Amino acid sequence: MNLLLFSRFEIGSDGLLCIDDARLQHLLEVHGKEPGDTVRIGEVNGRMGTGKIITINTEVAVLEPTLDRLPPAKLPLILVLALPRPKMLRRVLRAVAEFGVAELHLINSLRVEKSYWQTPVLEEETIRSYLLQGLEQSRDTVVPPVSCHRRFKPFVEDLLPDLVRGRQSLLAHPGDHPPCPRGADGATLLVVGPEGGFIPYEVDKLQAAGCNTVSLGPRILRVENAVTALLGRLF
Amino acid sequence: MNLLLFSRFEIGSDGLLCIDDARLQHLLEVHGKEPGDTVRIGEVNGRMGTGKIITINTEVAVLEPTLDRLPPAKLPLILVLALPRPKMLRRVLRAVAEFGVAELHLINSLRVEKSYWQTPVLEEETIRSYLLQGLEQSRDTVVPPVSCHRRFKPFVEDLLPDLVRGRQSLLAHPGDHPPCPRGADGATLLVVGPEGGFIPYEVDKLQAAGCNTVSLGPRILRVENAVTALLGRLF
Repeated sequence: MNLLLFSRFEIGSDGLLCIDDARLQHLLEVHGKEPGDTVRIGEVNGRMGTGKIITINTEVAVLEPTLDRLPPAKLPLILVLALPRPKMLRRVLRAVAEFGVAELHLINSLRVEKSYWQTPVLEEETIRSYLLQGLEQSRDTVVPPVSCHRRFKPFVEDLLPDLVRGRQSLLAHPGDHPPCPRGADGATLLVVGPEGGFIPYEVDKLQAAGCNTVSLGPRILRVENAVTALLGRLF
Repeated sequence: MNLLLFSRFEIGSDGLLCIDDARLQHLLEVHGKEPGDTVRIGEVNGRMGTGKIITINTEVAVLEPTLDRLPPAKLPLILVLALPRPKMLRRVLRAVAEFGVAELHLINSLRVEKSYWQTPVLEEETIRSYLLQGLEQSRDTVVPPVSCHRRFKPFVEDLLPDLVRGRQSLLAHPGDHPPCPRGADGATLLVVGPEGGFIPYEVDKLQAAGCNTVSLGPRILRVENAVTALLGRLF
């Protein structure tokens, strides 16, 4: 935890922040914090700064917050991802928040197993908890919006063209395509398919919506590794 | 499992390959393979090709191998990594093999907890099993060498200068440094520190051995994400 995130509802009328959950354990056990010490803190979707510890014991920590900085800028990137299996989804959600992806769209594909849409990871509070873990890691406060699109065709026909407009739009797809560019040229949309790739019909629809097909090389990477490698390459 | 890896000792005197372990379960349950089907196979540290299924049941699969292709080229990269905690080490080992890193050196640093060196993940057979998982994912057969260096100073003074020679050598380190280059210029050595970064003495020693300090941007990434983002950026 490189940043202690809190909600504005946790600030009392005296302007102090009271922490009494897992974050308290972390302050005590991992950081060994004592009264007078400061902690990096950030208000979810708000400013960041430091919290001076007024009181700390095994029951509660009381911090005096000074929020004097804006969170870091997001990457100018919309990521569109075929829903991965739950274990990978968790890692992808953390990485999306950690790298500062501006917006995530999870979409269907013929190769997305139907059961993946039933996972509890997709519950709103669970998505949020993984995103917060990523934000804590990279010291950001802004929770990126995550949308789920359970039907491929309405997404690519009705929503994708608006997302593509004004953005360099790339479809990372296995096969003999031009390599993914190094360094994104401003606002970008990146589509990453399921394990095994989109089927030809889906590739056609994505291209018709304005996506340019690019390759990540001859190796088949795990989805989470493909995403982070593409982020490192583009930004 | 995109590639069924086997050892040459598993080929019988009749030239056939018998599989009776977890790989058999995978063939039956995930791939639903039947006699006459083919499977992508690869001999560990050898050639790749296809295996034609002669017999398959819940006890054993017998395959006729045709090994007609070389594995893909490795990246011209030596990765030097401060030993991460065991959970991340497992992921890093898989990723190293998956991306085709040529060689991995795990080193000590003041910020590497001593207990990390005691993890069973570092046992030779365990390291190998994670590397094989990465090779299966990206269809490669060549197990990259992994070396452990429990003392920082002898590594940087006695071994690192030889590794650096003739290679573009980069130290990814938090702070205000030039950005990591996009696209590696041939043979490369990349050093990635522990969570929190190397201490100044260690940075000085790494620089004295010929490493150029570069930044990965303002966000603090998990080690596994920093490594895969750097690989995507450089190759």
